[in-house]
Amino acid sequence: MTRWKPNAKERLVRAALSLFRSQGFAQTTVAEIAERAGLTERTFFRYFADKREVLFAGAEEFEQHFITALDAVPRQSSAIDAAAASVEGVAIFLEERRDFARKRSAVIAENAELRERERDKMASLASALAAALERRGTDRAAAVLAAEMGVTVFRLAFERWIDDKSGHNLAQFVKESFAELKSVTAGRC
Amino acid sequence: MTRWKPNAKERLVRAALSLFRSQGFAQTTVAEIAERAGLTERTFFRYFADKREVLFAGAEEFEQHFITALDAVPRQSSAIDAAAASVEGVAIFLEERRDFARKRSAVIAENAELRERERDKMASLASALAAALERRGTDRAAAVLAAEMGVTVFRLAFERWIDDKSGHNLAQFVKESFAELKSVTAGRC
Repeated sequence: MTRWKPNAKERLVRAALSLFRSQGFAQTTVAEIAERAGLTERTFFRYFADKREVLFAGAEEFEQHFITALDAVPRQSSAIDAAAASVEGVAIFLEERRDFARKRSAVIAENAELRERERDKMASLASALAAALERRGTDRAAAVLAAEMGVTVFRLAFERWIDDKSGHNLAQFVKESFAELKSVTAGRC
Repeated sequence: MTRWKPNAKERLVRAALSLFRSQGFAQTTVAEIAERAGLTERTFFRYFADKREVLFAGAEEFEQHFITALDAVPRQSSAIDAAAASVEGVAIFLEERRDFARKRSAVIAENAELRERERDKMASLASALAAALERRGTDRAAAVLAAEMGVTVFRLAFERWIDDKSGHNLAQFVKESFAELKSVTAGRC
């Protein structure tokens, strides 16, 4: 008799993160993840192509959030304000996923292959943001600069947010990091 | 009778670049590179661990140039000025290697694995620059921001320089790109 398995995907993600953290990403098999989640391997493969995808399946959606937020910024805004609005838009979306984000980051930090994959994700995000800025009419150099600064600010704010124990939200760290960017660029530190 | 082979390393680099460009990086063997250079495979391996190293053997020296230039900047300079001085220092060193830089970039642009390796090189450079700025007393956030901006400006200036047909030098593109960075950050475009 098969029981209905609610939230299969969520359970797989939770089981995978827990195993990755306790025994390492490389040492964990799909069979173990499925077993821990009380599901079959077949069910796992219905949601993910492989165990790495548990950590990166959201990459496209993640990038899309930046682009959607950027596309909503009025045309007359400057490139840097558009990039900032885009990062702030994503911050709001990530806010409620802090527990997942924190655990995921801890797993990625431990594994060279995953760190490289995460770097690729960020490089791809920077290219997508630059292209979206160019579509708004920003010239290529300004688009590349604003996009890279947006991604750098995001990374810095994200790092602070997952390390933070005082309950600040990601959007606050984003605002703070953009202010620092302006102050650094102006030569004030 | 063995003839003395002058400039073996340089000849290997030239042969490798020429083959990578004409037949592709993946399709080129070390045997072909050695043959084209009029040298043995054994000689090749005295200089390079593998064919990829022909393109990346200088990575450490490259990074070291940034750090040396940065360490020479007076302590009272701001983080962004230190980063700019570092990038300008490297520009001077690269100036006479434009032909190599241009050919190397064309090879890298064609191959996903090489592009990834180049991205890693830039990420490693950004970390090294941030660490060097922190050693000067810059706080971590400002150090990360200034380092990432330095690397982004370098990439942008480098891209312009190898595409340029009018004979501008890299240092000029670096200055121009830093000026754009300031203008983008200040919201002027």
